[in-house]
Amino acid sequence: MSLPNTIGSSFAFTCFGESHGRCIGVVIDGCPAGLEISDQDIQSKLNLRKPGQSIVTTQRAEEDKVEILSGVFNGKTSGAPICLIIWNTDVRSSDYEKFVNIPRPGHADYPASVKYAGLNDYRGGGRFSGRITAGFVMAGAIAEKLLNSLLSLKIFAYTLELGGLRADLSKFSFDEIIRNRYSNEVRCPDSSLAQRMKDMIVEERGEGDSVGGIVECTVLGLPVGLGEPVFSSIESEISKAIFSIPAAKGIEFGSGFAGAKLRGSENNDAYIQSDKGRIVTKTNNSGGILGGLSTGMPLVFRTAFKPASSIAKSQESIDLSSGKESRLVVPGRHDPTVVPRAVPVIEAMTSCVLADLAIRGGYIPRVLKKN
Amino acid sequence: MSLPNTIGSSFAFTCFGESHGRCIGVVIDGCPAGLEISDQDIQSKLNLRKPGQSIVTTQRAEEDKVEILSGVFNGKTSGAPICLIIWNTDVRSSDYEKFVNIPRPGHADYPASVKYAGLNDYRGGGRFSGRITAGFVMAGAIAEKLLNSLLSLKIFAYTLELGGLRADLSKFSFDEIIRNRYSNEVRCPDSSLAQRMKDMIVEERGEGDSVGGIVECTVLGLPVGLGEPVFSSIESEISKAIFSIPAAKGIEFGSGFAGAKLRGSENNDAYIQSDKGRIVTKTNNSGGILGGLSTGMPLVFRTAFKPASSIAKSQESIDLSSGKESRLVVPGRHDPTVVPRAVPVIEAMTSCVLADLAIRGGYIPRVLKKN
Amino acid sequence: MSLPNTIGSSFAFTCFGESHGRCIGVVIDGCPAGLEISDQDIQSKLNLRKPGQSIVTTQRAEEDKVEILSGVFNGKTSGAPICLIIWNTDVRSSDYEKFVNIPRPGHADYPASVKYAGLNDYRGGGRFSGRITAGFVMAGAIAEKLLNSLLSLKIFAYTLELGGLRADLSKFSFDEIIRNRYSNEVRCPDSSLAQRMKDMIVEERGEGDSVGGIVECTVLGLPVGLGEPVFSSIESEISKAIFSIPAAKGIEFGSGFAGAKLRGSENNDAYIQSDKGRIVTKTNNSGGILGGLSTGMPLVFRTAFKPASSIAKSQESIDLSSGKESRLVVPGRHDPTVVPRAVPVIEAMTSCVLADLAIRGGYIPRVLKKN
Amino acid sequence: MSLPNTIGSSFAFTCFGESHGRCIGVVIDGCPAGLEISDQDIQSKLNLRKPGQSIVTTQRAEEDKVEILSGVFNGKTSGAPICLIIWNTDVRSSDYEKFVNIPRPGHADYPASVKYAGLNDYRGGGRFSGRITAGFVMAGAIAEKLLNSLLSLKIFAYTLELGGLRADLSKFSFDEIIRNRYSNEVRCPDSSLAQRMKDMIVEERGEGDSVGGIVECTVLGLPVGLGEPVFSSIESEISKAIFSIPAAKGIEFGSGFAGAKLRGSENNDAYIQSDKGRIVTKTNNSGGILGGLSTGMPLVFRTAFKPASSIAKSQESIDLSSGKESRLVVPGRHDPTVVPRAVPVIEAMTSCVLADLAIRGGYIPRVLKKN
Repeated sequence: MSLPNTIGSSFAFTCFGESHGRCIGVVIDGCPAGLEISDQDIQSKLNLRKPGQSIVTTQRAEEDKVEILSGVFNGKTSGAPICLIIWNTDVRSSDYEKFVNIPRPGHADYPASVKYAGLNDYRGGGRFSGRITAGFVMAGAIAEKLLNSLLSLKIFAYTLELGGLRADLSKFSFDEIIRNRYSNEVRCPDSSLAQRMKDMIVEERGEGDSVGGIVECTVLGLPVGLGEPVFSSIESEISKAIFSIPAAKGIEFGSGFAGAKLRGSENNDAYIQSDKGRIVTKTNNSGGILGGLSTGMPLVFRTAFKPASSIAKSQESIDLSSGKESRLVVPGRHDPTVVPRAVPVIEAMTSCVLADLAIRGGYIPRVLKKN
Repeated sequence: MSLPNTIGSSFAFTCFGESHGRCIGVVIDGCPAGLEISDQDIQSKLNLRKPGQSIVTTQRAEEDKVEILSGVFNGKTSGAPICLIIWNTDVRSSDYEKFVNIPRPGHADYPASVKYAGLNDYRGGGRFSGRITAGFVMAGAIAEKLLNSLLSLKIFAYTLELGGLRADLSKFSFDEIIRNRYSNEVRCPDSSLAQRMKDMIVEERGEGDSVGGIVECTVLGLPVGLGEPVFSSIESEISKAIFSIPAAKGIEFGSGFAGAKLRGSENNDAYIQSDKGRIVTKTNNSGGILGGLSTGMPLVFRTAFKPASSIAKSQESIDLSSGKESRLVVPGRHDPTVVPRAVPVIEAMTSCVLADLAIRGGYIPRVLKKN
Repeated sequence: MSLPNTIGSSFAFTCFGESHGRCIGVVIDGCPAGLEISDQDIQSKLNLRKPGQSIVTTQRAEEDKVEILSGVFNGKTSGAPICLIIWNTDVRSSDYEKFVNIPRPGHADYPASVKYAGLNDYRGGGRFSGRITAGFVMAGAIAEKLLNSLLSLKIFAYTLELGGLRADLSKFSFDEIIRNRYSNEVRCPDSSLAQRMKDMIVEERGEGDSVGGIVECTVLGLPVGLGEPVFSSIESEISKAIFSIPAAKGIEFGSGFAGAKLRGSENNDAYIQSDKGRIVTKTNNSGGILGGLSTGMPLVFRTAFKPASSIAKSQESIDLSSGKESRLVVPGRHDPTVVPRAVPVIEAMTSCVLADLAIRGGYIPRVLKKN
Repeated sequence: MSLPNTIGSSFAFTCFGESHGRCIGVVIDGCPAGLEISDQDIQSKLNLRKPGQSIVTTQRAEEDKVEILSGVFNGKTSGAPICLIIWNTDVRSSDYEKFVNIPRPGHADYPASVKYAGLNDYRGGGRFSGRITAGFVMAGAIAEKLLNSLLSLKIFAYTLELGGLRADLSKFSFDEIIRNRYSNEVRCPDSSLAQRMKDMIVEERGEGDSVGGIVECTVLGLPVGLGEPVFSSIESEISKAIFSIPAAKGIEFGSGFAGAKLRGSENNDAYIQSDKGRIVTKTNNSGGILGGLSTGMPLVFRTAFKPASSIAKSQESIDLSSGKESRLVVPGRHDPTVVPRAVPVIEAMTSCVLADLAIRGGYIPRVLKKN
């Protein structure tokens, strides 16, 4: 319960590695034996998060090639803990040396330096770098494959809002959203809006600035009753996982903050029978969750990301060594927004949480039968 | 890690009891020995959450008188687990019997019935009732006293928005907010707006409807560096705790969802020196948290509550025994809004999370010296 | 993972209460919904541990009447946490007041006083009293019923050795051992040896002394493969649970310490087919466990209990207030040996561990079907 | 709480890797920042466990060279999780292929095959191999350095009994035992007995057989009051850790099983003042633990190891593919006894447990001051 680098209880992972250390890795414990896993299953997910892919992301060039160090035997999970790593290769730590005493606004530099008495690896943000989310994606690849294979879940996130530009996705079907979300660099299913978002990012980057946005995530196919009340409600477990992603500052399920303005008669989702005789709700203001349990309707939540903290503009700070006020321009290679690369990370963390709850709730067995 | 009714790892509590069962209780484990605790310390907090206090709350009349069953010796915590209970007395379960097969929209009835195969105690919502938060408040009373005594923290929540009426609190000092927040029935520090909020609730109740709202919580006095990255960030732990409160559907820290629309140069908080030579930030868009760690600035977060699900209006549902569509008017005695009574619950859960992180981080010793 | 008063992860319990406090209680989390539970199921187990039953136990007269405070609905577990308590009634704390500064040899008084800076409830040993094992027995009653109902396990412990008198049980069948173990006051299945053991205890008590002994526990019916390597092996989990019982100082599985003197060719258990075509072993030196997993053979382990620490003889100690050497005769009412009353406690803790491992391993579902 | 490959709660490690997989590794979480760590600190401990060192161990030739993958920055722990691995190089898996269906007596083959439906990596025993204890030793090296640096503990294990030959160590001082324990191949501080033990092993190996033995471990310098009752007593935590070591089948603390034959007046340890004015006990039958807490006297416990299961003699087994009885001679390269190589493993696991309890109890801070 108190291991700060482990998340989950029945399907869990422990992460390690620093932005400019030797590698980024995870150890997954609790994955049922018998799941087919190839390097490609994981690599395809890592590639969605990989840096240096487009003009809207950092130019750090990492191959992020996964190595499976344990837990997979004859192409299947063996029931043993699964260690996955990627090696860091394109590291330029000298960028950071001269600013070690001048904390970057919006970054963890200052509180981390106080907490660890200056002993933490500050290069590239160390453990506080978004790079650690590569580990989340590796773990998520296993979780998602498990959920797909066993429960036929569909877990998909996408950019809903970027730099204030918000998509209206009501005109798209789930299938279209699933299909389109990775078809452009900003990961917005509305491709015409996506172009405007991209133009805006390029412009802000040109001005040395950055933007934030909102990622929505939808999950289809959840069985009714998933979730472990009272403290392992779906909202509790997902929010805990999502706030481990650097720059996430808000989360809402279903009607969320807007729902707080509605009346009960407007916000309550009436029960009706679907065409297929299933019990469904007319609306889905609950985001597919009541009492912390899945209702069988689509799980829907949105995450607010602040604008990337690393900007090229000069900012006020303080030199911790002298106590004097100082200015800095953040060094290094950075993303003008974290939102597009956060999309696969949110899918990954959502997958890990749902895999954990699915195992805890008995929806997935401990051993998948050998063929 | 997987006990669904336990929260926390170093200062933790396990809760038990049902809305219409014999009692509501908690067992707190990990509270340092030597903290002075009286019945009154806990009762004064319980009284803030107690039902039946005003026109804006349910008329269920529970005394909610705390009993300390263990862990306190000679007026101080002894290092042993602390069991606290209140007995249920004013129970009218018959209200629920006839609707056992017709799930109430917005409530956990339907997914809970599926999850537990109909074996769960459905009376008054059972474990899914807001009544279990009385246990949260009891645990929080101990946590808050610990934090006040050892770290001089000030933890205060208040109604920011109700039924769409939003307060502008920029005109009030922290001291005024602290002082005023419990001075009216809706727990809004702006007393003139509070009167309008109350009128609005009375009107909605008259129409058989309910409203939602937003509670803001502020914490003053946190040391720099509290939080245990990466998965026990302050945001992760607080959000997990807050989403255990029935009806919470969104949370945001600092600038939150609004911050997602800002540029990095606007949202980053510049470091400056305060008059007293401390390192502070000009703005507080981070809500006092960077990298999951406290910055020393006020911790600020907001929780969105949906409108209370129990309304007197007729609603569509399905009779699970026949599979036929049906209508129901929710029986029982209910709150027209959960927001005012959620205020002390949010203070309690915030206190429990911060006490846990404070002990984990070594900010509070295991034994307070004996006088 | 770090809650010192909670044990188990999927079937877990948290215990609270002190020897001379208001009550002894447990909260069980993770028990599947749908298990029939009556007061009598628990009371019958508590009665086996109850004090004051015979000349070989303490004369403290506690009724130890269980109350079910939560988690049972319509006679079945509901999936909610189960709180069980017994009230303390026959407390004579004055026995302890004058010796508060003179630690009793063999008791936790001295290290507990240092650890908690004198703040712990020392009356009757407080949390360190054997009385807290009444809580273990209550939790074990639920676990055992679960295991019996779902897996038809037979869990039975019995006195193997007392004050140096050791039983040869090879002449008894499992059925005879099961039947006879509670038929005499010392809980030894060999009734003629039991009489000698009892005489010996009476004699030692007359001399103001106490004796130790060994309890053996056997479990029949375990499925093959129970256990969660590497750190939740059956041996790991059972030993952790057993050493929570005051006065336990050694444990061995199968051939144990004697096996350390054997050759591999003697100690290895050869695989053969049973008459019924099952895979069994010729011998059972492994105690039914290989690699931390159950083999399907009887699980067998033995626990060594030291002689009861409270004796009427004068002993050397130190007055902590003056630092001077001092003598004391231990006050209060005590057992001349803990062994007979430890028998049901060992059954209880074994049941809790096996229920936990059975749920973790997927051998028991989360919800038992409603009739 | 339920992660089977993680042990500890405040100083914890997760282990991964299989005997014939790519590597053996651990991730340590919770180690305070600021501890100086070099490759050599870990390598020197690994070398004590390394195979192929003498005639009394397996001839598998592994270099076991540690690599620090994360968590150490500028020669000190950084507060981040520490990943340590060794690569497997001398793997001969073909030894195992033809016996995959014939479980080796005394090994986990049969129950593991049932538990994982044949999906587990069986090569060299996979996760059940003693080779995973190399990970324990790496974690232990960090823990021991922490305990030495902060609390000046001395943790030392040694062979007390081997193949029935038992040392009388009463003639040696603690200093002599510490100095001599690694001076011979069997790790017995009595060098003349050590020679006899070695001769005996060579003889048994010659006959294709193996032997068991007992390892004793002593810890000097523990503060009074370490341990977290009731379920994280020192005995509970140490026994859980020790039974994770393959072949361990018994453990006893202090007088242990022999103490069960004593009277209370014999077994109780009388309190006296030491020459230096400290409170000590005349005897140490408690093994330095009362009520699960350290007394300040030497912590003493003994672990019984069964004879190594892999023997060259022909044994009875069953061919799982045909269900027919069969014979096998265990293939591979093996230790004629696990005892000498278990000595550093026991030191390692004891160190990990004590580091965990020391942090939990507040005896070690979260950050060691930067020089």
